[in-house]
Amino acid sequence: MSARRLNFYFVFPIFFGGVSLAAPTAAGAGENDSGLMEIALRTFGVLPAVMASPKNDVTPEKTFLGRILFFETRISKDGTASCSRCHLFGLYGTDGLPLAIGNSCKVNPRNAPTVFNAAAQISAHWVGNRTDVEDQAKQALVGPVSLGMPSYDSAMKVLKSIPGYPPLFRAAFPKSADPVTPENFALAIGAFERTLVTPGPLDTFENGDASALSAAQKTGMNVFIVAGCSNCHNGPYLGGQEYKKFGIKEPYWISTKSATKDLGRFIVTGDESDKYVFKVPVLRNIAMTAPYFHDGSVASLDTAVRIMARVQLDKELSEMQVSDVMAFFNALTGTIPDSCLRVPVLPPSQPQVTKRPSK
Amino acid sequence: MSARRLNFYFVFPIFFGGVSLAAPTAAGAGENDSGLMEIALRTFGVLPAVMASPKNDVTPEKTFLGRILFFETRISKDGTASCSRCHLFGLYGTDGLPLAIGNSCKVNPRNAPTVFNAAAQISAHWVGNRTDVEDQAKQALVGPVSLGMPSYDSAMKVLKSIPGYPPLFRAAFPKSADPVTPENFALAIGAFERTLVTPGPLDTFENGDASALSAAQKTGMNVFIVAGCSNCHNGPYLGGQEYKKFGIKEPYWISTKSATKDLGRFIVTGDESDKYVFKVPVLRNIAMTAPYFHDGSVASLDTAVRIMARVQLDKELSEMQVSDVMAFFNALTGTIPDSCLRVPVLPPSQPQVTKRPSK
Repeated sequence: MSARRLNFYFVFPIFFGGVSLAAPTAAGAGENDSGLMEIALRTFGVLPAVMASPKNDVTPEKTFLGRILFFETRISKDGTASCSRCHLFGLYGTDGLPLAIGNSCKVNPRNAPTVFNAAAQISAHWVGNRTDVEDQAKQALVGPVSLGMPSYDSAMKVLKSIPGYPPLFRAAFPKSADPVTPENFALAIGAFERTLVTPGPLDTFENGDASALSAAQKTGMNVFIVAGCSNCHNGPYLGGQEYKKFGIKEPYWISTKSATKDLGRFIVTGDESDKYVFKVPVLRNIAMTAPYFHDGSVASLDTAVRIMARVQLDKELSEMQVSDVMAFFNALTGTIPDSCLRVPVLPPSQPQVTKRPSK
Repeated sequence: MSARRLNFYFVFPIFFGGVSLAAPTAAGAGENDSGLMEIALRTFGVLPAVMASPKNDVTPEKTFLGRILFFETRISKDGTASCSRCHLFGLYGTDGLPLAIGNSCKVNPRNAPTVFNAAAQISAHWVGNRTDVEDQAKQALVGPVSLGMPSYDSAMKVLKSIPGYPPLFRAAFPKSADPVTPENFALAIGAFERTLVTPGPLDTFENGDASALSAAQKTGMNVFIVAGCSNCHNGPYLGGQEYKKFGIKEPYWISTKSATKDLGRFIVTGDESDKYVFKVPVLRNIAMTAPYFHDGSVASLDTAVRIMARVQLDKELSEMQVSDVMAFFNALTGTIPDSCLRVPVLPPSQPQVTKRPSK
């Protein structure tokens, strides 16, 4: 193991422009905290308060509506699916399934990624076939394996039939003459999702609190960076900013034991070089969002870590290194926003009568 | 309409042992508030703080665990169903569907009743084929159309595999040597459900605040009682205490336009007199829990009110009387407990590593 560590010393300065980092000892990393903080800030950085977009300003009225719509099942083909179907906040914005299951038991081609810290990626979905969270939300309305509504019109008809919705849309989109539209539906859900950031111990550490991470977590961060994981999993989200081939050393499915060979981004671009290419997933909350990979083929996080090191970086991590990386991942488990832990009451289907109708 | 009202005057003293009640005027019911409060208390009564059971004492540890298990999808056959699947708190503990849809798109034979104010009924389910909420929760684990697990053992195996669950079961059932059992699962969920009471304006009124109900709501209560609705829909839950045939004047399906003729409690008892007999449903929050009846065959509440009056009581209600009864129903819409509006974070599938393993 010490040989492996020594190796890391050599690799490290290349990645970080000469910043020198002594490997933390097993006992603790106190003496190097400020150096590690600087590296962490440079490699990752803290989460923003909101994942802003010039195309969709986040207003309280939009997020209020979007949060309600996120739980709305009545705009799904069989009446059982909502955004929350595959993004359960109690399961950290995922569904615990290898492949997401939408309306009418339709199985999605890929694993449902968490909606937390998701809105600032280069695109939405594993292969980038949705431009952003707004595009994802809109297409989900009529997506055969998601909400599956027969048309946008039919979905809007349902929303208009529920007395509480038109006023909420009017409040969120005061400039729209007829605000109950698929575009505004998407903007409202997108605005809500842009608020779903989950700062965790890593951010506290980066903000100067050395005690936020355990010695194992600090060592794990070092392993993560030096091994090369952060070549792709970097920035505040530890991913989400580029596409990469999964399977550098060998085809991924040998290690993941995947049932099918997903062509990845090739299905979007048709470009041969995009075969088996996927968006680098966000690693925030990764310890809470099993199973792993685009097809959920791997149930346990330690196995996933070993596979990534071997298949992408051609490295074999020791048991202790895997354990330390797992500990670092725990520092990515953040606080779920209160807006998610509070279920909104949905507008009822019935008109609510309290008084006699005026004549 | 005044003839109809006059009729009610004659009926009234028979129901209430001579208590005299002047019908509130359309303008207001101020002068009769104390009499109406007395009648309301006698006919309905206020909700208890907890729906206690001698078989399942409600402890904080049990309700804490039960609330988490209520949202647990990993103990369903296809991984998508939980108690929350058919009892969404955002939809007042129902699912908005005519017939509940459980795991693997299995359609339940009947409409999902709300879990609010449900635990004090004579039985669970529309035809009383579950003795209580604990029996319902236990059988749901392996019920083919609910969670659909192949066996109790397989369900317990899943719960035991999730590191966070055994400690929660141990805390809730400190006397159990091996606490992760289907019986304890049922007791935990039952304990949680026994806390799900939703006091509303009716209770505030019964507690002496005459302003809690509008004039229309007071008139509607009068109509509800005098017409005979409260013959069955009485007590704090406005139902849930007896079985009654649905279809006194004529078969119910003529009015409800039901697709099938449900034999009702006959399927439980085999007794000819139980044909088309159902448990009298709880009317608390009825304005929030469309669609209506055991088969969800009626979408709107005013239609449901008219059908009940005609089919059960052989009465035709005027438009204004229906509107007033609807207003009274709005006084049954209560406050959802904070424990329901806060989503619990479920224990993750992965062991959570923060430190190096001790040697």
